[in-house]
Amino acid sequence: MVVIGGDAAGLSAAAQARRLRPASELEIVVLEQGPDASYSACGIPYWVGGLVSDRNRLIARTPAEFAARDITVRTGTRAEEIDLSAGTVTVTGGERLTYGHLVVATGGRPAHPDVPGLDAAGVHGVHRLADGADIRAAIAAGAKRAVVLGGGYIGLEMAEVLKTRGLEVTVVLADPVPMAQLDTDMGERVCKAMGDMGFDMQTGQPVREIEVDGDGVVQAVRTDAGSYPCDLVVLGLGMGPEVTLAREAGLDIGVTGAIDVRRNQQSRSHPEIFAAGDCSQTFHRITGEPAHIALGTHANKQGRIAGSVIGGRPARFAGVLGTAVTKVGDLEVGRTGLCTTQAEDNGYDYRTETIEGTTRAGYYPGAAEIAVKLLSERGSGLLLGAQVVGGPGSGKRIDVLATAIWAGMTAEELAGSDLSYAPPFSPTYDPVVVAARVASRIEQG
Amino acid sequence: MVVIGGDAAGLSAAAQARRLRPASELEIVVLEQGPDASYSACGIPYWVGGLVSDRNRLIARTPAEFAARDITVRTGTRAEEIDLSAGTVTVTGGERLTYGHLVVATGGRPAHPDVPGLDAAGVHGVHRLADGADIRAAIAAGAKRAVVLGGGYIGLEMAEVLKTRGLEVTVVLADPVPMAQLDTDMGERVCKAMGDMGFDMQTGQPVREIEVDGDGVVQAVRTDAGSYPCDLVVLGLGMGPEVTLAREAGLDIGVTGAIDVRRNQQSRSHPEIFAAGDCSQTFHRITGEPAHIALGTHANKQGRIAGSVIGGRPARFAGVLGTAVTKVGDLEVGRTGLCTTQAEDNGYDYRTETIEGTTRAGYYPGAAEIAVKLLSERGSGLLLGAQVVGGPGSGKRIDVLATAIWAGMTAEELAGSDLSYAPPFSPTYDPVVVAARVASRIEQG
Repeated sequence: MVVIGGDAAGLSAAAQARRLRPASELEIVVLEQGPDASYSACGIPYWVGGLVSDRNRLIARTPAEFAARDITVRTGTRAEEIDLSAGTVTVTGGERLTYGHLVVATGGRPAHPDVPGLDAAGVHGVHRLADGADIRAAIAAGAKRAVVLGGGYIGLEMAEVLKTRGLEVTVVLADPVPMAQLDTDMGERVCKAMGDMGFDMQTGQPVREIEVDGDGVVQAVRTDAGSYPCDLVVLGLGMGPEVTLAREAGLDIGVTGAIDVRRNQQSRSHPEIFAAGDCSQTFHRITGEPAHIALGTHANKQGRIAGSVIGGRPARFAGVLGTAVTKVGDLEVGRTGLCTTQAEDNGYDYRTETIEGTTRAGYYPGAAEIAVKLLSERGSGLLLGAQVVGGPGSGKRIDVLATAIWAGMTAEELAGSDLSYAPPFSPTYDPVVVAARVASRIEQG
Repeated sequence: MVVIGGDAAGLSAAAQARRLRPASELEIVVLEQGPDASYSACGIPYWVGGLVSDRNRLIARTPAEFAARDITVRTGTRAEEIDLSAGTVTVTGGERLTYGHLVVATGGRPAHPDVPGLDAAGVHGVHRLADGADIRAAIAAGAKRAVVLGGGYIGLEMAEVLKTRGLEVTVVLADPVPMAQLDTDMGERVCKAMGDMGFDMQTGQPVREIEVDGDGVVQAVRTDAGSYPCDLVVLGLGMGPEVTLAREAGLDIGVTGAIDVRRNQQSRSHPEIFAAGDCSQTFHRITGEPAHIALGTHANKQGRIAGSVIGGRPARFAGVLGTAVTKVGDLEVGRTGLCTTQAEDNGYDYRTETIEGTTRAGYYPGAAEIAVKLLSERGSGLLLGAQVVGGPGSGKRIDVLATAIWAGMTAEELAGSDLSYAPPFSPTYDPVVVAARVASRIEQG
C-alpha cells in the first residue's frame, strides 16, 4: 500500500489499514514531500500568535512513531508520477515503487488571486509550517503593518494573531462581508465587531496588485478603492484541491476541481485507486451535490474510510454539512448546513429566522450576546442550515444544530428537545431552542 | 382560566393561552402564594455567592408586566382548596374563584431528611428568594463553617458559592459519590476534583441529627461516622413535587408522587384540569416510563403545552432525557439519557465506553481534560445515555449528545457526523465524536 501525502487523510488511511491488516500481510509506505508529516496546519495562526510556543507541538506524530506501528513514513520524498497501468509511483530521483493499493492524499493548495506582485518578498501563505516560520521571522524583523487578503477562517485567525502581536491589520476582501460561508446579515455582524476591535475592514474590493519596491519587497496592496501600505501580506483566501499528479495520471476530476470519488473514496474513473482529504471531492449531506471543503476533520474521516476498504472492511463516507467554527478576539462564529445562497441554488422553499439572546442566564456574569439564524424548509419544517455569531460560548453551540440537521430533525423537534440548563451555561431556554421555537411557531401559523 | 402557581409552568401556561386567545375571550388569573412571581430559583446560589448583585435580577417579570399582557398575577395569594365539582378555587381569606380552565402549577418542595434538629436556626433550603436572603444574612452575620446536605446540582452549586464567600464547606452525602444522576465512576471524578479544590467531602453517610445548642441554633451535623461542626446548614437534597392541594382535591397521583398527567398535561383522572411543572409527573423519552425531574426548562415547556391546549391548539409534551449541567469551580459536569442503573432497571442490553480527551487542540492554551462516557444499546448501537466531566468547555457538550439521543441516533451515526473544529474549540475529532467512534468500532467487532 502506497500513500501519497503524509498529513491527515494519508496517515489516517495508513493507520486504519494497519489496524485491520498486520504487517505480515500488508506493507504500508507513506510518501510526504515536505519535511514534516502529520502537522496541524490549523494551528499555524496560533503558533504565529505566540499562543503555541513550540513548533513541534503542532506535529501530532513523528515518522518514528509511525515506524513503531509498522508504517513507513518517508518525508522529503515527492511523488512525481503515477503510472496506473504499471501500478507504480515514481519519486524524485527516479525510484519507482510498485503498489497493490494506492491512496492519493495530496491535499490542498492555497488559493491566490491572479495579480502582479504575488511573488514579492513579504507575501506569505498559511499552509506549511515553513509559512508560519516565515511570518514569525517577518514579525521578529519588525513588520508593523499587515494586509490579510481574504476573509475566510484562516484569514480572520491570522488577522487576530497579527493584531495580538502588535501589528496594524487591514483585511481586504473581494466580498461585501467576511466569511462567504455566512449569509450577508450574519457576516455584517462579524464585520462590524471586527471594526470595533480595531481591524481596518476593506470590503467589496478585489485586490488588483501587490505593490513592490525596487528590491522586490512588498510595499502595499492596491484595490480599485485604495492602496493599503504594508510590510507583510498574508493570503487567507482558502484552499483549493491539489490534483496535478492525479490529473496527469488520468484520474477523473469532478466539477469542484477535486478528484471525483465514490462514497467509499474510490476514484470514480479508476476504482482501484483511492483519494481522500483536501484533494478529493465529496458530497453535501443535505443536497447530495458534489462539494469540496478543505478541512482536517473530513480528511481524517475520508482517510479512515479508504483505509477501512483497503483493510477489507466496507465503509462509506457520510457527507459533509460544511460545519465550521472560528473566533476573532471574543467574537465566536459558527455555521453548518445550507446558507441562503445554497438553499436558493438548490431549489429549496425555505424560511429563515434570526433570534438574539444571551449565552448564559441574563443575570449571570459573563452573559454575552448571541445571534442564531436558522434556515428551515417551508412546510416540512426540516432544518437546513444554521449560523451563530456572538460572544464566548457561542461558537460550539453550532454542534447542536449540526447534529440536529445531520439527524434530519425539524425545527419543532429541536424546539421540544431536552438541552441542558444552568445559569452559568444558558438561559432557561437555550438560544438554539429559542430559534427553533420561533421557526416552528411560525410554521404552525 | 385560573392558574395556581406563578412561576415557570404557571406563567408559561398563562402566556401561551393569552397568545392564542384575546382578553375579550378569556380572562386569566394567576395565584401565587409567595411575594414574587416568575423568579429564577436556579439563580439563588449565584445571588448568595455575590455573582448576581441584585435580587431583582432574578425576577424575570413583574405582575405589572403581566398586567400589560392582560394576565392578572396575584402574589401573596394562596390557593387553599380546589372544588372540582363546583369548579372553584378558594384562596386564603375565603374568596372563591370560579374557573373555566384550571392549571395546577404548585411546583416543588425541597426534600429533607427525617432527622431531629431540622427546624433549628441556621438550617436553610434553597427554594425561595427568602431562603437566599436568609443565607446571605447568615454569611453577613459571620458564619464560618457550612455543611451542605446532599450532592445534587443545587447542593454542589451552594457548596461552591459558600466557599467563594470564604466559608469552610463540608458536603455530607448519603450516597457514595455526589450527583446520583451520574454513574459511580463519573461521580468519583467529581468527588476527587472537589476534594482537590478544598471541599471536605463526607460521602456514604446518611445524616442522623442536626445538633443544636440551648438557643436552638445549629452547632453540627452528625452522621454515623462523625460530627461536623458548623454554623450554617444548607439543604441540597433535591426537590419533590408539591401536590397537597391536588391530592386533597382528588386528582390522581402517579408512581413518582407527582400529579399523573397525559402527554398534553391534562390530569389523567380529571382531564378538565391541567397540571404542569415540578408538581406534575412526566415520562422518559427513551423508556417511556413515568419520571419526575424538577427543572425550569421542563416546567416552561409543560406550561406552554397546557396553555396551548387551553388556547385551542393541540400540543403534546415530548418527554425528558434528564439532561443537566452544572459547575463547581472550573469543573463542569453534564449528563443526559440513561445512566447504567437506569439502563439496567429498564432491561437494556447495553455497553459503556469512557474516553479521555481535551476540550481544545492539545497545543492550544486552556486545553482542559474532559472525560466522556457513552451508554449504547448492544447490537443496534442506539445511544442511550451520556455523561461528561471536565474543565471549562466540557459541560455544554452534553447538548450534542442530548440532541443525538433525542433524534434516535446510533453511535456510528454520531461518529460520522460533521461537528465543528478549530484549535480554540476542540481537537480535530471532538471528544464527543471520539467516544462515539470507540463505541461504534467496538460494536463493529
